[in-house]
Amino acid sequence: MKKRYITVLLLLYFFLSPFFGWAQSALYLDESQSIEVRVKDALSRMTVEEKVALCHAQSKFSSKGVPRLGIPDVWSSDGSHGVSDEKLWDEWNSAQWTNDSCTAFPALTCLAATFNPKIAKLYGTSIGEEARYRNKTMLLGPGVNIYRTPLNGRNFEYMGEDPFLASRLVVPYVQGVQSNGVAACVKHFALNNQEIARGEINVNVSDRALHEIYLPAFKAAVQEGNVWSIMGAYNKIWGVHCCHNDILLNQILKTDWKFDGVVVSDWGGVHNTDEAVNGGLDIEMGTYTNGLTTQGHFPFSSYYLADPFLKVIKSGKYEMSKLDDKASRILRMIFRTTMSANRPYGRFVSPEHSDAARKIAQEGIVLLKNEKQFLPIPEGRYKKIAIIGENAVKSLIVGGGSTSLKAAYEISPLQGLKNKYGENNIVYSMGYASGRPLYGAEEPSKLNVDSLQNAAIETARHADIVLFVGGLNKNYFQDCESGDRKSLSLPFGQDKLIEEIQKVNNNVAVVLLSGNAILMPWLNKAKAVVQGWYLGSEAGNALADIISGEANPSGKLPISFPKKLEDVGAHAFDQLCYPGDGKNVYYKEDILVGYRWYDTKKIPVLFPFGYGLSYTTFQYGKPAVSSKTITAADSLEVTVSVKNTGKVAGKEVVQLYINDETSSLPRPTKELKGFEKISLEPGEGKIVRFTLTKEDLSYYDDTKKEWIAEPGKFRIMIGASAADIRGVADFNLK
Amino acid sequence: MKKRYITVLLLLYFFLSPFFGWAQSALYLDESQSIEVRVKDALSRMTVEEKVALCHAQSKFSSKGVPRLGIPDVWSSDGSHGVSDEKLWDEWNSAQWTNDSCTAFPALTCLAATFNPKIAKLYGTSIGEEARYRNKTMLLGPGVNIYRTPLNGRNFEYMGEDPFLASRLVVPYVQGVQSNGVAACVKHFALNNQEIARGEINVNVSDRALHEIYLPAFKAAVQEGNVWSIMGAYNKIWGVHCCHNDILLNQILKTDWKFDGVVVSDWGGVHNTDEAVNGGLDIEMGTYTNGLTTQGHFPFSSYYLADPFLKVIKSGKYEMSKLDDKASRILRMIFRTTMSANRPYGRFVSPEHSDAARKIAQEGIVLLKNEKQFLPIPEGRYKKIAIIGENAVKSLIVGGGSTSLKAAYEISPLQGLKNKYGENNIVYSMGYASGRPLYGAEEPSKLNVDSLQNAAIETARHADIVLFVGGLNKNYFQDCESGDRKSLSLPFGQDKLIEEIQKVNNNVAVVLLSGNAILMPWLNKAKAVVQGWYLGSEAGNALADIISGEANPSGKLPISFPKKLEDVGAHAFDQLCYPGDGKNVYYKEDILVGYRWYDTKKIPVLFPFGYGLSYTTFQYGKPAVSSKTITAADSLEVTVSVKNTGKVAGKEVVQLYINDETSSLPRPTKELKGFEKISLEPGEGKIVRFTLTKEDLSYYDDTKKEWIAEPGKFRIMIGASAADIRGVADFNLK
Repeated sequence: MKKRYITVLLLLYFFLSPFFGWAQSALYLDESQSIEVRVKDALSRMTVEEKVALCHAQSKFSSKGVPRLGIPDVWSSDGSHGVSDEKLWDEWNSAQWTNDSCTAFPALTCLAATFNPKIAKLYGTSIGEEARYRNKTMLLGPGVNIYRTPLNGRNFEYMGEDPFLASRLVVPYVQGVQSNGVAACVKHFALNNQEIARGEINVNVSDRALHEIYLPAFKAAVQEGNVWSIMGAYNKIWGVHCCHNDILLNQILKTDWKFDGVVVSDWGGVHNTDEAVNGGLDIEMGTYTNGLTTQGHFPFSSYYLADPFLKVIKSGKYEMSKLDDKASRILRMIFRTTMSANRPYGRFVSPEHSDAARKIAQEGIVLLKNEKQFLPIPEGRYKKIAIIGENAVKSLIVGGGSTSLKAAYEISPLQGLKNKYGENNIVYSMGYASGRPLYGAEEPSKLNVDSLQNAAIETARHADIVLFVGGLNKNYFQDCESGDRKSLSLPFGQDKLIEEIQKVNNNVAVVLLSGNAILMPWLNKAKAVVQGWYLGSEAGNALADIISGEANPSGKLPISFPKKLEDVGAHAFDQLCYPGDGKNVYYKEDILVGYRWYDTKKIPVLFPFGYGLSYTTFQYGKPAVSSKTITAADSLEVTVSVKNTGKVAGKEVVQLYINDETSSLPRPTKELKGFEKISLEPGEGKIVRFTLTKEDLSYYDDTKKEWIAEPGKFRIMIGASAADIRGVADFNLK
Repeated sequence: MKKRYITVLLLLYFFLSPFFGWAQSALYLDESQSIEVRVKDALSRMTVEEKVALCHAQSKFSSKGVPRLGIPDVWSSDGSHGVSDEKLWDEWNSAQWTNDSCTAFPALTCLAATFNPKIAKLYGTSIGEEARYRNKTMLLGPGVNIYRTPLNGRNFEYMGEDPFLASRLVVPYVQGVQSNGVAACVKHFALNNQEIARGEINVNVSDRALHEIYLPAFKAAVQEGNVWSIMGAYNKIWGVHCCHNDILLNQILKTDWKFDGVVVSDWGGVHNTDEAVNGGLDIEMGTYTNGLTTQGHFPFSSYYLADPFLKVIKSGKYEMSKLDDKASRILRMIFRTTMSANRPYGRFVSPEHSDAARKIAQEGIVLLKNEKQFLPIPEGRYKKIAIIGENAVKSLIVGGGSTSLKAAYEISPLQGLKNKYGENNIVYSMGYASGRPLYGAEEPSKLNVDSLQNAAIETARHADIVLFVGGLNKNYFQDCESGDRKSLSLPFGQDKLIEEIQKVNNNVAVVLLSGNAILMPWLNKAKAVVQGWYLGSEAGNALADIISGEANPSGKLPISFPKKLEDVGAHAFDQLCYPGDGKNVYYKEDILVGYRWYDTKKIPVLFPFGYGLSYTTFQYGKPAVSSKTITAADSLEVTVSVKNTGKVAGKEVVQLYINDETSSLPRPTKELKGFEKISLEPGEGKIVRFTLTKEDLSYYDDTKKEWIAEPGKFRIMIGASAADIRGVADFNLK
């Protein structure tokens, strides 16, 4: 009987083999073999030149495969908000194809504001489908550098100030991307928290802050997301550039975390052959490219991991195993992606992706203020709605550096609001002009500033209500790669403009589109404030959904909004703390980043981390713990009931913070260790459950170089934001 | 028991389903479904705009897929001798990538000269692997237009003058390409037999000549090769352009031959929306592109099958079924290629491809004359070998029009001979200069003609032997698209040069690299003549193999070499017969193309079709037939013994011609109906077997519009060329 089964199986195997390519002659082409067997086999067939060719760029966005063996080139694409257009071979310029206009998804700050891992999965899956359709090996994202200062020009590309939040979102994002047979490339590893002097600055940070604040999202991407590639940062740590930093890449990433994927450099982040060989780098990209506008026409063969690498390997200075390790990692990524027979086909600019972009935007938009239920504004309530502000019409998909996209379409806020309220009920006035978003153009050209402002004021004066749509705009120094913001204030005279408008119209709501916190001197007089981030192709539709009430806002701030720059931890010390002296920067605030700083230092903020209003209200019950005392081996269950006490359905992000009340090391007053976004109909209640384990209670001990869950009293705080704790419960760790 | 098997099978199915993607949600993505089911399902999901978008170019070499559904764009590439480099989006210029330098294979005339279907399979498989590695949907080749006149500028891209030979070679070529999941695109359908006035000329040809001479290779590609795409020709037939010719494409190709693939236009071959809609065209490419150097920057949306097509479909002027048929064919090709899960990965510039290129070249080189065994030349026999002629050093991979390639490498004849005989034994002198191969440059610049010639003569005078390496060279008018040759003679003063050289050196061998027959006024004094075609990357190695005797020549002429132009059928009448009056051309020689003409008209030739010498000799036995009388239902077996009577191993092409001795319609004296290339060791003999069926005996009856095998007496002629019949046998068809 057994024999017969085996016969059937064998017959099936041989019958199906040719059909499924099982019987390909070479092991590396045999899909039935494990990836490790295939990698080993392919490697054994390769010359040293072919192995070296894998390790450096051949064009702006590609590196070589092994053509002789049918192993495809590696093609990567910016970026984490959408799949960039095709570029010329060795230039940043667009190749001017017409089939590469993508769906632009909201910026990652917006994703972070959703506080929703399911939305992160949707995001990753959708953008991964677009990258797969475009046949990319690697999508250069997501970015998970921690928001240390609101001046950082790239904050909009990242997931906020909290390592736990970023960790919970990066994992499903990576999984979603990679389900398409496209490698996500988590970046920028690590500590690229400012753009000033990013290429040379040496970040001085305690091991504790590194492990507790700056690394957890990367670690989660590796250990839980099983990410297939990671991008080194431009800056240095321990005096060595991150793209070839032995401790960071070999010790922490590859040894401690057991990362088996590819380390790719940021473009132009490699500086030295010996360090590149030894420091854990696998693919060198963009060398001699300094900044986005500089053309790099140096031969790729002169890259540090090109001919110079071949030379030191051939000379015997380095063992072949150094090269074999890099080549194996690259082959592994190729077998996981472009040489995976099960790779789906993806899709590009589909209605599903538009829906996803709109949904992400809807869930990420944060309602900061809503005096006397000024919002939502139902259709028909007002006859004349004035929309004022350049961001109502300016493309916020273009600009900002490497995330700049060629999008298939972009619904501007003005268009979205017109679609919702009708062309006849909307009047628009720009109010201010930001000038061209060019690198080096520090200030906008002062074109008709007064006349624009006066026109806007007149428009506002005669309108029922005013929706001011402003913020930052991805111009250089206004949320853009390669430079940090110079001030926490709104640029282009917007504060003055808003105040003037408030003088002539009492019903002014402000919609801010930005990737960073800003100051709001006009806040008291604003009837409502909406923080809208950069929202991608569906920006206008999603904003109109929120403003009209078709969608109930459920976004929560993934960053704190301070009352002034000096209140920020990174700005509370001296210039060495930020931006450094050009050579070194010292993270003197240590682990106290974001709300950890404000809470612990008892500094009031404009809007706290985790904060966001809804059109309904939620009542929290008293939290309960499964045990008053646990051991390190136990897990603790925390439950809390939440009820929708308002009149419309809504979503609430229930947040769990802990405080280690008896610790030998100083600990923050609060640390986010759980959150859950729940959806409740009016009157509906739900029990939210959290499970805490030893990991959630631990700190990183610099001296012992390990995570310690120290016995003693812990407090659990359940809140609607870091500053709005609705209930507490205590327990003891034995 | 049966139930148990079914259980096992079902379990296997469900266990393996997710792994093989069997269980994808949409039918069109379900690999377990038939292609027809997938096509139907995909079509049912598409909008009319999406269907129309499939039917015309979006760039120079691509047309749109359905991004929303994950259906990839269609990317095609020139050409049939190697995979062209990547081009800019809407220009003929190279995109200047560095990963796209291909293996250049010998021109198709050389493949035809191998008379070897196994070599054709090797050729197709190899070039298909290169196209697959480059991720092409469609390879724009092979070309199988019949060699009607030696002046045709594109003859080198085709497979000679005989429909049977071309048929037997196109089938394995197509199968080889398509085994890689890349569609071959047989071209140019049909009657593109001259480049003069190719865009407008109306070819007037009898139905009989059309079906007997000009269509068989296309028909074989469709019916035996199952080719997935075919390219329309520029010219007209029956007054209508071939790219949208109802009779040719709908009646003959799609109805009579049951072609279910895609008809793609030649670039710029479409002229009219109504005809394009109704005339059987599926994809329109290159409209507004006139000639290779003209940039086409008209919007793709203005193509005849773009917005104008959408308009007439939406207006109801044409039924949706017209569009659905085109879209279905394109989808079918996509599912057969880029959306086939079993598509292998190909490979690019591999040693196997170099070996293939060398082997094809070795088997295609034809030894035309070899007085007193002048060849082979063993290493060491001569101390001073003079190589003279520009073709010994000029790239013959570049130029010629759309087959021009960016090759990874090219071994020139000079380099190949140096490698073989040693640098010190070779002296080189160019002898003549052809000038730059630019379109419009009718004559080479007259640079130092005399001094080049004198230098060559001096070189020849002091050498032991002279190998003159000349011929045509893919310059405009010298084997190049868009223009025909202006004379049958060698260009650039080569005849005079050869004759001068012969005056100072008695030991002159001439190696001709060309895709066309030429005149040889110096033939009598030449010790040896080698016809080498365009040989691709391995040109020099293959030539050196033949000249040195490491390979024994086995190529046979796939074209006749006439003694003068007026002897050619197409040139035996008036200008209307060739090249026509700009509007019409009349194929007055009718079915008597190539050796059919010379034989029937008893015109002696310089070298006949099927001719080629070896370094050994072959003795033919008397042919035998299996029966003296057969019916139309029978098949006839013909056997003949062939023995290698020389001292080295060699290959012989045993050829079978028939003559219908009692026919109501005039028939050619000889028609090739069988050939077999056999390999024989010295002294070895083999029996060669041919099987003839009714099809081999038939002519096409214009009046009845069908193939007729007319009863009566037939003669079988077994020969070593069309002019070297070694034995005959007769039989009767009842």
